[in-house]
Amino acid sequence: MSKEQRTQVSAMLRQPRPDGSRSVEAIRAGFKAMMAQMVVPDGLRITKTTLGDRPALHVEPGTEPGTGTRTGTRTGTRTGTILYFHGGGWVFGSPETAVSLTGNLVARTGFTAYSPDYRLAPEHPFPAAIEDTLSAYRALLDSGEDPSTIVFAGDSAGGGLSVTTCLAARDAGLPIPAAIVAFSPGLDATRTGESMDTKAGIDPFFTRESLGHTGAMYLAGADPHQPLLSPAVLADLTGFPPMLLQAGTDEVLLDDSTRMAARARAAGVDVILDITADVPHVFQSFVGVLDEADRALDRAALFLTQHVRTPDTAATSAR
Amino acid sequence: MSKEQRTQVSAMLRQPRPDGSRSVEAIRAGFKAMMAQMVVPDGLRITKTTLGDRPALHVEPGTEPGTGTRTGTRTGTRTGTILYFHGGGWVFGSPETAVSLTGNLVARTGFTAYSPDYRLAPEHPFPAAIEDTLSAYRALLDSGEDPSTIVFAGDSAGGGLSVTTCLAARDAGLPIPAAIVAFSPGLDATRTGESMDTKAGIDPFFTRESLGHTGAMYLAGADPHQPLLSPAVLADLTGFPPMLLQAGTDEVLLDDSTRMAARARAAGVDVILDITADVPHVFQSFVGVLDEADRALDRAALFLTQHVRTPDTAATSAR
Repeated sequence: MSKEQRTQVSAMLRQPRPDGSRSVEAIRAGFKAMMAQMVVPDGLRITKTTLGDRPALHVEPGTEPGTGTRTGTRTGTRTGTILYFHGGGWVFGSPETAVSLTGNLVARTGFTAYSPDYRLAPEHPFPAAIEDTLSAYRALLDSGEDPSTIVFAGDSAGGGLSVTTCLAARDAGLPIPAAIVAFSPGLDATRTGESMDTKAGIDPFFTRESLGHTGAMYLAGADPHQPLLSPAVLADLTGFPPMLLQAGTDEVLLDDSTRMAARARAAGVDVILDITADVPHVFQSFVGVLDEADRALDRAALFLTQHVRTPDTAATSAR
Repeated sequence: MSKEQRTQVSAMLRQPRPDGSRSVEAIRAGFKAMMAQMVVPDGLRITKTTLGDRPALHVEPGTEPGTGTRTGTRTGTRTGTILYFHGGGWVFGSPETAVSLTGNLVARTGFTAYSPDYRLAPEHPFPAAIEDTLSAYRALLDSGEDPSTIVFAGDSAGGGLSVTTCLAARDAGLPIPAAIVAFSPGLDATRTGESMDTKAGIDPFFTRESLGHTGAMYLAGADPHQPLLSPAVLADLTGFPPMLLQAGTDEVLLDDSTRMAARARAAGVDVILDITADVPHVFQSFVGVLDEADRALDRAALFLTQHVRTPDTAATSAR
């Protein structure tokens, strides 16, 4: 059953992979078309807004009991704000291409989400994306949101941003968010993880070459040996909030997560390294199709609700 | 708040630690007294029974809505059987000393549990414990239980048994259980984890010497270099069910879990490595006192319910 689903998704993805030399426009259009197939829960309120001078998608839970997700148990709104960072190699993607993931986290937690449309390379290389995501976080804080009710989440490059935005916030003297959830995060521009080689040919999305193609656009000549580009190998994670890292074994980026988890443990950070076998990069996107995706999102939602300080949890922890 | 709780528990445990040369009787009595302080949920039915020729504790959920746990959401019984293996270095402990952990899993999942009173060293060294736990599992299967509704769970030495019993079952040609949950499992009798040294003096329970004292009773001269004694460094985990490993950073056994997780990933097994900072060995025992304990047990319960095939989940995955 479930194994069949995994095989089906894997086969679906083993199409001729994006040619590393395709134009930026073609890559963006292809990704948009693929992600448009993903399931968005019913009953959410999704509106366009602005956050920190950038456009953003605002995703709110339904107000009716049981809205949103079949397996989730949330009914209506709860205190908590997800700052969601979409994936796309810092070159493609948008809040809309990640709205399935953002919406499924909202439906499962009852939290509200903002998904900023941060600037992309090659037009705006590193560190433009982090400037924008930090600015979005600062805008939330300036609006009076309590950082203990804000969580960062993201997939792929956006999973990387969930970590690097936290680094940038800490180093700017801002309070840190309550938790970080990263789906198949990209955390190493030096590309030194063993999985870069051991998962070559198994990963249906990426090769070292294809990652290098878009990666070079983001770097634009910057040295990858810096914490904001390669946190899994270089970042000091002191003071970081609890982190949940989810990845599949069918991805060259697997060891970005395993090394980040080891670094977090060594820094005294609560960290869950949640690995699902035989599934590809950001398998959570197959929510509603692949049981593993639904289960992973349910675990992510529990993790987020455990770490956001709400009137409920404050009462609980005072017992 | 939570940091204060952690500090309080840590301080409580930094009492003069058990002298490695104490008698077996003194160690057993001391552990029994300590574990008698742990919180058992209200409303469970706890009865003595027999399983596979050994005494066992049978723990059933309450039948009234909301019974059992403040944070858990289960009401009444659900399909699913936990085979729980208590901790105690294969030398001390009993189903009763682990009844807080067993009961809290039962209350949170709605499953029923059996906790076998496996034979202990030095009277009955390796492999007596595994013979008894395997016999308990076989008895469940013989009684008609579907292996896809059975999960193994355990703490410390019992966490080790949750893995080695699965190895023994697989190698005996039995079907494997649906999932494994291990709290601070002991998975390496060779004691080669880096944390054996890096966490010396931080671990409030164990030193290399104290582990060696009881460990020698269990080994009774057996070579520790075998999968049933050191699965984290030697076991072939092919075909294993999804595993959840939880540990704290304040324990010399930490790397038993990190190495087991790496082995599981390499073998294509779904594995969650769930590490909480600044908490000691089997911190889940402090349920009701330490928020981290309650949250860890809630995550374990979600994991178990995700992997037990019930009429509900069968319907879900058929969608």
